[in-house]
Order: sequence, then C-alpha cells, then structure tokens
Amino acid sequence: MPRYRITIEYDGTGFFGWQRQAGQASVQGAIEAALLSLTQESVAIRGAGRTDAGVHALGQVAHFDLVRPQTARTIRDGLNAHLRPHRIAVLAAEEVPESFDARFSATARHYLYRILDRRPPPALARDRVWHMMRPLDVVAMAEGAAMLIGNHDFTTFRAAECQAKSPVKTLDKLDVSRRGEEVHIEASARSFLHSQVRSMVGSLVKAGLGDWPPARIGAALAARDRRECGPLAPPYGLYLVAVDYAASDVDQPGRGGVDDPAEDEAE
Amino acid sequence: MPRYRITIEYDGTGFFGWQRQAGQASVQGAIEAALLSLTQESVAIRGAGRTDAGVHALGQVAHFDLVRPQTARTIRDGLNAHLRPHRIAVLAAEEVPESFDARFSATARHYLYRILDRRPPPALARDRVWHMMRPLDVVAMAEGAAMLIGNHDFTTFRAAECQAKSPVKTLDKLDVSRRGEEVHIEASARSFLHSQVRSMVGSLVKAGLGDWPPARIGAALAARDRRECGPLAPPYGLYLVAVDYAASDVDQPGRGGVDDPAEDEAE
Repeated sequence: MPRYRITIEYDGTGFFGWQRQAGQASVQGAIEAALLSLTQESVAIRGAGRTDAGVHALGQVAHFDLVRPQTARTIRDGLNAHLRPHRIAVLAAEEVPESFDARFSATARHYLYRILDRRPPPALARDRVWHMMRPLDVVAMAEGAAMLIGNHDFTTFRAAECQAKSPVKTLDKLDVSRRGEEVHIEASARSFLHSQVRSMVGSLVKAGLGDWPPARIGAALAARDRRECGPLAPPYGLYLVAVDYAASDVDQPGRGGVDDPAEDEAE
Repeated sequence: MPRYRITIEYDGTGFFGWQRQAGQASVQGAIEAALLSLTQESVAIRGAGRTDAGVHALGQVAHFDLVRPQTARTIRDGLNAHLRPHRIAVLAAEEVPESFDARFSATARHYLYRILDRRPPPALARDRVWHMMRPLDVVAMAEGAAMLIGNHDFTTFRAAECQAKSPVKTLDKLDVSRRGEEVHIEASARSFLHSQVRSMVGSLVKAGLGDWPPARIGAALAARDRRECGPLAPPYGLYLVAVDYAASDVDQPGRGGVDDPAEDEAE
C-alpha cells in the first residue's frame, strides 16, 4: 500500500484539537472524512504533533496509507476541495517510503508562541495571540529562556496528564524576540512533553511582567516540581510551525535515543 | 462640547461595513452603542473612510463630541470594555480641537491589499486575503501600477454608485511587493473614489496573471470607461491602514483642493 505524507495548515479555533474524538470536531477527523470522500477509503492518519483545542498549525505533518494509489497532486487538491467548509488546508502531499512515520520519524518540531502586549485588545488577531495588557520585558524573558536550553528534566513544565515515559528532553531553541506590537517565542526540540511550550511560555511571561526575577525560571526547572511552574499560557497563541525529518529517518523510523523519543506529547 | 478622535482596528468580516444602517451590524453602529453605554450620551461618530462590508481596518479614524468631558484613557479603555463582544478595538483616543474632522481634515489615506497566490487555500488567513491559485508576476503588476500614479481622471476605476463630484484624484503611491507567499499592494492618496483601490487591484491582478499586458492598465485609465476596468477585487483582502492629518488641518478642516477633496468614498 502506498504511503503519503501531507503538510497541513489549520486554524485551531473551531476544533477540539488535532486528535479524533467521538462527537467532537477535530482536525484529524475532518481530514479523515475528506479522505473518505475523496478516495472511498476509510483511512486513519497519524500526525506529528497532537495539538490541543485552539492551537494552530502552519506546518503540521501527517501520514496515511491508501489501498488504491493516487497522485500527490490529486491528494492535495482533492483534500482541499473536500475540506473547504473547514479552516484546514493541505499545503503539500507526497508519496513516502512505507517506513516513514509522521510521529516517530520526526527529528525536530518547531513551535511559535505569539503574545500581543498592548493595552487595547486584539481585533484582527483575536484567537491568534495571547493578549497581555502590561508591556513585557523581552530581555528578562530571554534571560529566563536561556536557562531552559539543553538536556534537562522538564518535570516542572509538564502537564499532569503527560504520558511520556521520561520527563527528560533536549530543548534546542527557545528564542524570545519583539516583533512590533508582539512578542514571539520560538521553541524547537526533537519532541516536547505535554503542554511543555505553553508551560514554559507562562513562566517566561511572569519574568517578562517583572513578577519573577529571570533567575526564578532556572530555579523552577531545577525544582522538578509542577507547582513551581507559571500559569499555563492559553492555547490560541500557539502554532506548530514545522516538523523536520532527516533523510535517514525516513528509512529508520523510531531511532530516537532513550531520553529523547520522537513521540511528541500534546501541546 | 469637547471633541475626541479615536483610532480603531477592526475585523470587517462580521459587519455590513463601517456605516450605520438600520437592521444591519455596522462598525459605526457598534461603536456608537458602546459610547452610549459608556457615557449615557447618544452620539453620532464620523469616520475617515466608509469601508465596505468585509473590509478591515488597522487604523481607521473617527471623531465625535460629548456633552460631559471624559479623559482620553476612559474613552479608550471604556469603549474597549463595551466593545468586547465585537472584533473592534480602540487603539488610541485623544481630545482634539472642535475644528478637527476625521473625514474632511484627512491629508492622506493609506490602504493595503493582501493577495495569497498559492495553490492551497488559506486556512489561518481566510477572510483576510484574496486567494489566487495561479502565481502572480509582481514585476508586471508594478509596471502597471506605475501608470496609475499621479493626478488622473480615474473614471475607469470608479464604482457606478460613487458620489464624488469629480473623478479626478491624485494617487500618491501604488506599490506592489512580494511578502513570502503573499503579494501586497499599498495605495496612498488624499482621498479615493468609491471602490477605487479594489478596482485598481482587480486590474493589476489581470496583469499579474498575464491575462493583460501591463500597458493595458495605462490604456484602461486613459479610456475613462468603467468597462475597461478589471474585475473588482473582493473586500476581505483590503485594509484601511492609517489616515494622516496635518497639524494645520486640525484647525482648518476642509481645505482640500477642488479636484482632490478630502471626502473619501466607500472602499
């Protein structure tokens, strides 16, 4: 059976999240329904990241198998035609080796968190940014973020419902920068714990508001205690930007190390 | 009575346009209702540009008078509190001289038109961009745009319902540039005819798609004939970005020349 990989953009606002759930609108469910309409095949797809309700994607990746081959172009354009009622778009489709797994072959996941720090609320960016009425100190946030980079036990920044075997992850990037009226936080890792990005963002915001000295971020990490985490940032500021795959991973799925499995937890 | 000027951002999607209309949701109507709730005064506001249904604003300007003075901060924050159900935000408020008129004192209006030219439809930017499945040639569009700059009779690019006394306007800027997957068209003038920006954009797109040679834009202008205009671009790609006022205009409203009145027609 041929295997296909699709890259997907979506507005998470109207969805209960990526993952199919009985009686709830999900991104996965909408794409599977579109695949059924297009191919007459009942297909289960697997995504690289299980985004939570309200979280957006600029470049989610998923894979699935079909019994009857289709051209990549038919899959992309046909899915988009069937997905028209939804705010979901298939940006790219391609046939991949059977060994490719959107979740387990991923070598890096890139997330963006957008915060609008101005007194008036967002009008055009509503449901797209976290609104903060007080100004954020980006330098303090960056100072705190630097303490989280590297291989650590991220228990403090892990949701209670996280199912990952180990809380140890390697955070490759956590950049904080001002973009006009917004503050952007860019996070990259092979995989993340459940709500790890939103947990880190919520803590960085405490430093940005001056409620915490930046050093408290490092202390919170060292405590390995969920109670030391700042408030969880809301889902609607978060974007799954892209997922990377190495050429070698396409043929060797699941080759992640013991402490850094490629299985991403929900964001 | 003190006069106030407010700067407003809004998502035009859910509105019948800027202008108050009986039985229809309008931006003006929503702000006037919020002003009534805030001040207990029934106030008519006047906007710089009467945007059509679906057109957005990043910096619309309006003015109004109150019987009982309020601080600028109370107006901005109070209006935002009362506007919360709507995708409208008051970015700034200030007290201005009685001679200030948001519509007649304007010295320049700046519009942005966003086009997404990629095969997959927009998911996150739905209702925010004009989607074009074929790629646009930005160089051809810029070549056509250059022919429209300056003082001209814009009859070709004027909606039938336009109420301006003269079709002669001075177009100060019409820039076409690529921004990643989008093409942005930025237009500036003291004032525009009804649907002038969307008419020009629709014609430039014909050149961008290769359906028209760029020279046809100049020929269409010279024809002074509405039938020579390209298709009207849809409203949801258009943004009223900003409105300029000269310090002297604040004290001398309505000083526009005969052929370039400051009264803007609907976009």
